[in-house]
Amino acid sequence: MPHLTDIEIARRAEKRPLPEIAAKLGIPGAALIPYGHDKAKIAADFLHGLADDPARSDGRLILVTAINPTPAGEGKTTTTVGLGDALARIGKRTAICLREASLGPNFGLKGGAAGGGRAQVVPMEDMNLHFTGDFHAIGAAHNLLAAMIDNHIHWGNALGIDPRRVTWRRVLDMNDRALRDIVAGLGGPGNGQPRQTGFDITVASEVMACLCLARDLADLQARLGRIVVAETFDRRPVLARDLKAQGAMTVLLRDAILPNLVQTIEHTPAFVHGGPFANIAHGCNSLVATRAALRLADYVVTEAGFGADLGAEKFLDIKARIGGLTPAAVVLVATVRALKMHGGVDRADLGREDVAALRRGAANMARHIRNLRGFGLPVVVAVNHFDADTETETAALIDAARAEGVEAISCRHWAEGAAGAEALAHAVAGLCDGPSDFAPLYPDEMPLREKIETIATRIYGAARVEMAPAVERQLAEWQDAFGHLPVCMAKTQASFSADPARLGAPSDHVVPVREVRLAAGAGFVVAICGEILTMPGLPRHPAAESIGLDGDGNIVGLF
Amino acid sequence: MPHLTDIEIARRAEKRPLPEIAAKLGIPGAALIPYGHDKAKIAADFLHGLADDPARSDGRLILVTAINPTPAGEGKTTTTVGLGDALARIGKRTAICLREASLGPNFGLKGGAAGGGRAQVVPMEDMNLHFTGDFHAIGAAHNLLAAMIDNHIHWGNALGIDPRRVTWRRVLDMNDRALRDIVAGLGGPGNGQPRQTGFDITVASEVMACLCLARDLADLQARLGRIVVAETFDRRPVLARDLKAQGAMTVLLRDAILPNLVQTIEHTPAFVHGGPFANIAHGCNSLVATRAALRLADYVVTEAGFGADLGAEKFLDIKARIGGLTPAAVVLVATVRALKMHGGVDRADLGREDVAALRRGAANMARHIRNLRGFGLPVVVAVNHFDADTETETAALIDAARAEGVEAISCRHWAEGAAGAEALAHAVAGLCDGPSDFAPLYPDEMPLREKIETIATRIYGAARVEMAPAVERQLAEWQDAFGHLPVCMAKTQASFSADPARLGAPSDHVVPVREVRLAAGAGFVVAICGEILTMPGLPRHPAAESIGLDGDGNIVGLF
Repeated sequence: MPHLTDIEIARRAEKRPLPEIAAKLGIPGAALIPYGHDKAKIAADFLHGLADDPARSDGRLILVTAINPTPAGEGKTTTTVGLGDALARIGKRTAICLREASLGPNFGLKGGAAGGGRAQVVPMEDMNLHFTGDFHAIGAAHNLLAAMIDNHIHWGNALGIDPRRVTWRRVLDMNDRALRDIVAGLGGPGNGQPRQTGFDITVASEVMACLCLARDLADLQARLGRIVVAETFDRRPVLARDLKAQGAMTVLLRDAILPNLVQTIEHTPAFVHGGPFANIAHGCNSLVATRAALRLADYVVTEAGFGADLGAEKFLDIKARIGGLTPAAVVLVATVRALKMHGGVDRADLGREDVAALRRGAANMARHIRNLRGFGLPVVVAVNHFDADTETETAALIDAARAEGVEAISCRHWAEGAAGAEALAHAVAGLCDGPSDFAPLYPDEMPLREKIETIATRIYGAARVEMAPAVERQLAEWQDAFGHLPVCMAKTQASFSADPARLGAPSDHVVPVREVRLAAGAGFVVAICGEILTMPGLPRHPAAESIGLDGDGNIVGLF
Repeated sequence: MPHLTDIEIARRAEKRPLPEIAAKLGIPGAALIPYGHDKAKIAADFLHGLADDPARSDGRLILVTAINPTPAGEGKTTTTVGLGDALARIGKRTAICLREASLGPNFGLKGGAAGGGRAQVVPMEDMNLHFTGDFHAIGAAHNLLAAMIDNHIHWGNALGIDPRRVTWRRVLDMNDRALRDIVAGLGGPGNGQPRQTGFDITVASEVMACLCLARDLADLQARLGRIVVAETFDRRPVLARDLKAQGAMTVLLRDAILPNLVQTIEHTPAFVHGGPFANIAHGCNSLVATRAALRLADYVVTEAGFGADLGAEKFLDIKARIGGLTPAAVVLVATVRALKMHGGVDRADLGREDVAALRRGAANMARHIRNLRGFGLPVVVAVNHFDADTETETAALIDAARAEGVEAISCRHWAEGAAGAEALAHAVAGLCDGPSDFAPLYPDEMPLREKIETIATRIYGAARVEMAPAVERQLAEWQDAFGHLPVCMAKTQASFSADPARLGAPSDHVVPVREVRLAAGAGFVVAICGEILTMPGLPRHPAAESIGLDGDGNIVGLF
């Protein structure tokens, strides 16, 4: 087969009518709320019925995660889709759970977040634009709260909000560096109280995290109400519910909380819903979608953001904890190319066979395997095949996994679709039949400070954590009211350490916690290790400059 | 019938399946792109076919406008819906064309923009929230252009954009006074060039006006490209196409430009599409929707924002001119209550009969009638009945209209639905069968300054226009390149004059033009007379505080 581009493959895909896709999971047509012909939301009534139905038991939850990502690419979403398609191909009733794509970044670098090659979710174009409007709704709910804060201060400030201590910023789904740091409220008394603030990208909103961790609309409303937005002049926290904002925010999210159903190009049902940042938030798709999928399918394949040190750890310690999920197996995606980079090879030299480098870089994979097995979970490595990989390299990778007691399976779903991931599907199904002894890394009652240290030493292989006194004080202050919450680590995705240049499996490094933030609505404490950008910028030549419509009305330049 | 609230009536309405509504206009099911079960967009292919089909002729276009609005309310949208339903009831193939509602203001004052009583469009709740996402798409396109401007300056500013002369602001669909006037780009070189700017509400975006005046997607892309966003250091205009932004903006608007189809509670098809501000923009629904409706229906009822001095004038001089529309008749909505206010009665005293005040206030109606007939259009007055109106008052209103040679018909569509507006429908159908001799107020080639003077003296009854020297200079500068454009007046809606306190029919007043703005993409020059707020604020007690979901998941407090 000639190599078509992702968009060519997506456009040639013959989509089946969505009711037919839904029927594979026993979702009746009446439970579908159509958005166009190829996207639908699942109706709330049907979701409630699922949760309450004693005749239903949950399917097996399979988490797809990866080694620390490199510029070589590892193909985690592609593997999630390919594995889902392959499980369906071998006769398993399967659903895939993915995150939605953020619109803004697509106008910066050519992007797309719907898999690739023959392992894609469609309609790809819609998914990379407005999709079903969820992110716009989240932005509106977030910004309504922001407007209500400044409005409260403007009209007399009965709550005594300290304008210097408003932590709630605004959001846009756009890469716009000029909005990172602004002074608002200028122009005289009619425009409110001048103060310094800024915008984040919508996926960084705590509203996004709340929506993705809520069990239902009532739980969402409660979480939104608990969001801490500011402090008063006498340093008491101001909550969204103090401003009576949570009801209107929930109304704005009434549709956004319903999972979106689409299909892969091989017609496997895919729930694409939610998209919290994987640094300052937990980086998984919505709990509502995952839980619905588990009620409907026998096998549910989902992914977590970034590498396993960040994404899987948060999936297991935050989402699984809050949502009462028990994964049955974990798939760790690795590539020959990425492990060679972890072994010291430059990106430009990846075309050359280098087994020694691969063996060195495999230390990164090995630590992730040990970490994941430490959660009591069975693990398999998916070797996402690239054309330039040599047989010797692939064999070395498989050997390295075997040395950790884990099977590694070469997969060609990118080129071949489901057929290329059949062996992986059989292995995963086999693991799911075996025992899983899942437990999160730390108990709720462990103090916040210790939770951070536990993650840093046990998952990152760090010698210790370094905290500024202000950070220690802040954690101590929160311990009583919020000490039971899990911790959400914000760290570079590129390394086990906080230094993106330290590839492989560094040890004895120090993890600096520069800042901690309370996400009381979402239900976690964020520990920020290093620079975290919550509002991206556009590059010198943004992709937007070459995006447009051709003579037939087709989109060009977006992918 | 007991008086139900609007929302109770809307919730009790039995909606028909949308394909059945579409079939009334001959729209095949395949041309519907569903958004939920009760909203749809019309597919682009079908729209193109309509425009090109030589077998189709256009239906009659009926413009609903009103006297100068007062706090008493005149019910223009309600009358538009009631008349549409009544035309359908007397056997005419009818479509209604309305604007979409802005989301932001609904969280300030209790609102809703879908008619009222038994003359409503449904689904009311969706229409007052995200609807089909058009406004979010417009906001994204607008803000992408803004991000590209600051990004261009950040990366070397090859075009030589003067950061002090960037006129393109950002938008949000939110009432947020704190964003009116901001300094962005703070925080160091990585965040770009600091400069003063601000946010408007999305309906004030020129992108909104472009979308509503474009004939199709290609025309939209051309209009977006012509938007002037800044000046260079040597005072040359910088266009959106200089930044190569128009293609990506158009891609973001690919779905938003397609008209939305919904239904009235009496099952008349309604195209609800677009919603430009009625002050700094032209305040009518989209040309795409109006033109499609005219190809599909024999009678198309549409409305324009504010009173006839602003809304109808702009509909006739901007939208009809750009879109090649020829209205067949105009309905001028008046109420006993509002005319009594124009005659000097306080709002608190409206419950008391006051025929003398009504006769004084009828001068407002009389001038609107003369203005509309001056466009060569047949006019009928719809007297939107309120319970407290006395028979003597209604008779006096009808007499006052008759004195201007125009019929006035009492309508009870709010209480009775279509049945209450049957007489109006017969009268309108009769007018449509008679001659219409429509011509816009001024020719394209009239100089900009004279266009403003013509509107002020002929429509507003002003003695003259007062322009600051800077305004005169600016108009003279634009005359060569943009002198052919129509003028869009931004003036208080409450009065023929620029002073909102001068009710009735003031004359010999002076219209001050404080500022002029070029909307080269939309295709008009805005003349600002008085204070125009393009970003509303929230009130002391925003409606948002009482909006929420009840135990059954129904929205409370929004209406």
